[in-house]
Amino acid sequence: MATGTACPLCAEDGGALVWRGANLRVIRADEAGFPAFYRVVWNAHVAEFSDLSAAERSHCMEAVTRVEQALRQHLAPTKVNIAALGNMVPHLHWHVIARFDWDSHFPSPVWAAAQRPSPAEREDAVRQRLPQLEASLLPVLESLQLP
Amino acid sequence: MATGTACPLCAEDGGALVWRGANLRVIRADEAGFPAFYRVVWNAHVAEFSDLSAAERSHCMEAVTRVEQALRQHLAPTKVNIAALGNMVPHLHWHVIARFDWDSHFPSPVWAAAQRPSPAEREDAVRQRLPQLEASLLPVLESLQLP
Repeated sequence: MATGTACPLCAEDGGALVWRGANLRVIRADEAGFPAFYRVVWNAHVAEFSDLSAAERSHCMEAVTRVEQALRQHLAPTKVNIAALGNMVPHLHWHVIARFDWDSHFPSPVWAAAQRPSPAEREDAVRQRLPQLEASLLPVLESLQLP
Repeated sequence: MATGTACPLCAEDGGALVWRGANLRVIRADEAGFPAFYRVVWNAHVAEFSDLSAAERSHCMEAVTRVEQALRQHLAPTKVNIAALGNMVPHLHWHVIARFDWDSHFPSPVWAAAQRPSPAEREDAVRQRLPQLEASLLPVLESLQLP
């Protein structure tokens, strides 16, 4: 797929923009039941992680790591889930998701069947911590350099 | 969770061992419907990717990349899926999965509901290419050095 409007991650940010750098951006996804669901999106249209150079892969995963660290520091999740799938949108993006033992799907992946209803109050409590989490991420992401 | 028999990835390889190095190993998982399903397992018991040092993270992802490259070269999959979830087994392991537009779940993640029956003949054709794929991986993984 060439760069163009046919690819939604070429045409739009793909969610609420947290930060954009020269090579990648971080967005907050709007996924029901998972308030702390972020994506690290490579700006250029590449399909697979191994389409990046070694330096680009390192840069990309350091951004993923910074997002994971922010989730851990601010939310103390039960587990962080990281995935680059792209079957539907083959434009490299990493899902970085804070998972909680009380969430609707735990311990299943977010793509599996729900195990229980979403506890709205606990989700809201997570959501309230996101502005501070995201503010803390900005200087950290800004300091990342493509090696 | 401490290292010990309580963790299945501390107690056992976790699948058919393809290669083992000082820091990580590559196994072939036995997942119905996905013949080219590999895992890169960090040997030491850490839960999250960000528990690794920067050098370890780079080493780990270069191994993941080599597996992805082998899948692409030998199988020409529609897409490669990479994920570190660990909700059930919180010992760092990366799923690296060749996905095909004919597989039972495509384009859904392998953890979602099946979309169609598994085509046994096409799976067998993939399976027959794995010995050569795995043989090609050995020198490539052997040459990886923890920076």
